[in-house]
Amino acid sequence: MSPTAQGPAGFEARTRASFAKQGIMAHLGATLEGVAPGRVEIALPYRPELSQQHGFFHAGVVATVADSAGGYAGFTLFPEDAGVLTVEFKIHLLAAADGERLVAAGEVIRSGRTLTVCRFDAWVDKAGQRTHCATGTQTLMSLIGRAGVKG
Amino acid sequence: MSPTAQGPAGFEARTRASFAKQGIMAHLGATLEGVAPGRVEIALPYRPELSQQHGFFHAGVVATVADSAGGYAGFTLFPEDAGVLTVEFKIHLLAAADGERLVAAGEVIRSGRTLTVCRFDAWVDKAGQRTHCATGTQTLMSLIGRAGVKG
Amino acid sequence: MSPTAQGPAGFEARTRASFAKQGIMAHLGATLEGVAPGRVEIALPYRPELSQQHGFFHAGVVATVADSAGGYAGFTLFPEDAGVLTVEFKIHLLAAADGERLVAAGEVIRSGRTLTVCRFDAWVDKAGQRTHCATGTQTLMSLIGRAGVKG
Amino acid sequence: MSPTAQGPAGFEARTRASFAKQGIMAHLGATLEGVAPGRVEIALPYRPELSQQHGFFHAGVVATVADSAGGYAGFTLFPEDAGVLTVEFKIHLLAAADGERLVAAGEVIRSGRTLTVCRFDAWVDKAGQRTHCATGTQTLMSLIGRAGVKG
Repeated sequence: MSPTAQGPAGFEARTRASFAKQGIMAHLGATLEGVAPGRVEIALPYRPELSQQHGFFHAGVVATVADSAGGYAGFTLFPEDAGVLTVEFKIHLLAAADGERLVAAGEVIRSGRTLTVCRFDAWVDKAGQRTHCATGTQTLMSLIGRAGVKG
Repeated sequence: MSPTAQGPAGFEARTRASFAKQGIMAHLGATLEGVAPGRVEIALPYRPELSQQHGFFHAGVVATVADSAGGYAGFTLFPEDAGVLTVEFKIHLLAAADGERLVAAGEVIRSGRTLTVCRFDAWVDKAGQRTHCATGTQTLMSLIGRAGVKG
Repeated sequence: MSPTAQGPAGFEARTRASFAKQGIMAHLGATLEGVAPGRVEIALPYRPELSQQHGFFHAGVVATVADSAGGYAGFTLFPEDAGVLTVEFKIHLLAAADGERLVAAGEVIRSGRTLTVCRFDAWVDKAGQRTHCATGTQTLMSLIGRAGVKG
Repeated sequence: MSPTAQGPAGFEARTRASFAKQGIMAHLGATLEGVAPGRVEIALPYRPELSQQHGFFHAGVVATVADSAGGYAGFTLFPEDAGVLTVEFKIHLLAAADGERLVAAGEVIRSGRTLTVCRFDAWVDKAGQRTHCATGTQTLMSLIGRAGVKG
């Protein structure tokens, strides 16, 4: 899925509006960095509130940011009145998420009418060095015309 | 894996001590409910800070709590000096996580010297009704004698 | 999902007819053992033609039988004119699949209009002892009224 | 993982020797096409013996070939005396595997002392057109000095 392909009209504004409604993103401190058709990037600075027992980013926090990156990557290609839900995802923790900042990128592999498949990756930055700390895949569902699930 | 099997000496205290070190659990508001050998339960009351864009628990929040439930289920069976890391997990979101409270339970399927496989499930309670909202499986790694990863 | 619940009329005959059309099942030597609403069991005797490099059942062979067991478990609950396709699955190889016979069972966790989620497990029998060698989960899609994909 | 990186001495001969021992590859009709450090490709011509109920390649057959492609991709980077076992894998079926020939490629994402993570993809060729029909990820374990699991 080429990140330079043209998305549906208004996709970036819709994606940013939906992201702003995710209470957990503000609670973690995550910000929406890049929004292109079929590709979304989210960043999250480290705080002790995000840690697992050894002081690294918790696997679930990495998964939360990666799931939103993939979910919104799919969402950028959806028609205007569609909502997005995650059907399932799998994540590999490739290395300890030990860093000052986490970056996750989601990318559409296949965009379908009902189901979309995405890949996501995450990296941690520490002392100027970037480590690939997670990768995974995800199935999304597009919901059209269901009350309460637009966006 | 029978939850009534006897775990290693001190397993419950070690599990509770490690859980208390996960900054993200306090930040979300999650509490460790049940700790048995090979089985752990975690609960999380709803707050808008935990939501995705439609106001339900975010899939990543469900995953965070489920990953910790599974991780600690495996940890209860580890020897005293071992740390636990998640290698990978997969989660199915079976229904919208729309409720006042989320409960996740992790259970060991196979406990090995290096790798442990767990299953986890999550439910939401709403107006006295419980809905099975997630299920998944997980691979854990036991780390022995590595500085910084005990517990 | 209770395996004693009543399935749609004719579910067993439809399941057996569809299984008989899977060329790979005969090629491997797999047989449909149990068919109940929401639960299907398949067996496969060992032959060197099914091996990986150490002489055990190949992980892909275990996956093939497990995928069909789960797929048909879901199919038993589908309406008469629906076809079934696997959207994705994940499998854990819990132990070397070293045995004279492989048995796989699939079970519906959640049956929906479009998507169904199943769990599957596999065991190997060797010298009278049964070993749990695989477990996993699967997303199925129900296809209604599409030419070429009935059954 | 760059496919042009130099692998351990003798990696290609060891990989081809191990592949030749997988009874299922000959039984399906699969051939080892490309072997580079961290990347392996396998091809499989269509036969009715490989089908699911609609006449396409069975999802389990796609998974078998993809699992071997990923497994051998990891194996190319292992030391001489190590064996490889699949810990788990997940596969997405992106499109009906309707074609004359299936090609699967596995690629190492992270190669570790004990665990290796790979990605695999599969395509079907039909009437001169190639369709991306599957993608997934896999965890492998390197086994050193265990009787019966070399290669």
